[in-house]
Amino acid sequence: MSHRFNEKTINRETIFEGKVISLHVDEVELPNGKTSKREIVKHPGAVAVIPILDNGKIILVEQYRKALERTIVEIPAGKLEKGEEPENTARRELEEETGYQCETLEHLISFYTSPGFADEIIHLYLAKGLTKAEVPLAADEDEFVDLLEVSIEEAEELVRTKKIYDAKTAYAVLYLKLQKGL
Amino acid sequence: MSHRFNEKTINRETIFEGKVISLHVDEVELPNGKTSKREIVKHPGAVAVIPILDNGKIILVEQYRKALERTIVEIPAGKLEKGEEPENTARRELEEETGYQCETLEHLISFYTSPGFADEIIHLYLAKGLTKAEVPLAADEDEFVDLLEVSIEEAEELVRTKKIYDAKTAYAVLYLKLQKGL
Repeated sequence: MSHRFNEKTINRETIFEGKVISLHVDEVELPNGKTSKREIVKHPGAVAVIPILDNGKIILVEQYRKALERTIVEIPAGKLEKGEEPENTARRELEEETGYQCETLEHLISFYTSPGFADEIIHLYLAKGLTKAEVPLAADEDEFVDLLEVSIEEAEELVRTKKIYDAKTAYAVLYLKLQKGL
Repeated sequence: MSHRFNEKTINRETIFEGKVISLHVDEVELPNGKTSKREIVKHPGAVAVIPILDNGKIILVEQYRKALERTIVEIPAGKLEKGEEPENTARRELEEETGYQCETLEHLISFYTSPGFADEIIHLYLAKGLTKAEVPLAADEDEFVDLLEVSIEEAEELVRTKKIYDAKTAYAVLYLKLQKGL
């Protein structure tokens, strides 16, 4: 695609700057010369990790998500801290949420989660060579998770039977199968 | 999981109520009795459609996303209007974005896109029996898209070679392959 559909920012109003996200309303000039408004959430970006144990099982976390007012099953994930390399975030979040450290960490793919209103990008990693940390990093003090261990086939079945509601987790399971032939 | 990790809302501050999204900051009581704040984006929900032509190709749309300041390739998608049934949204968005009407529309799966900060849910549909509308619904006046037609194998290759950056689109392609054996 050429740049003919680009939208030029005429004005940006900052509505909110929070701990995690910020919100702007951009006034834009459209390709046809008219103007419109775009409500945009800025997010620092995040990582998600598929942790594979030596026995082939993957570790999932079940946690309460206030935005949804329910618990859901996900792969370990967390947002980038300021200036933090995604690979370091991945190692940190893996240890905080599961208690495991990993020998190898492979970047699989990065993707946008909600391009219609947010710039969040998630960097997806595969973690192998897992060992329990002797003194694991403490979880964030406002984070509480339960751990599950499932085989790839069981994870795939959870997607197929619509028991995984989280896009990144479902995508990660299917991507792993596609790309790795697992 | 029991409800032991649920977070009780102590207070909700509404920061913004826009055309598409709204933003709240919830003060919550954590399972350990402490309090924390959650920045939460409310979204009306959306649909995404995989349109399959009689020749087996799927239709993708390329459009500029202001949140990302770039164009990306996606399946047709759009947000639910107030009181609109998701299936009707799917038919409407398909016609607005591609000019096609569909004979059959099958709900495949629904998923959350960004549970860490937003409640957006996407209902994914498969559309078949496509025919060009004689007088297609007009696109939203602030929406400009280019159309692409690719085979399922080509779409899968776009995922594999990291040329599809949109999670719902990549997930939809892989889900179709997994579930439908296509």
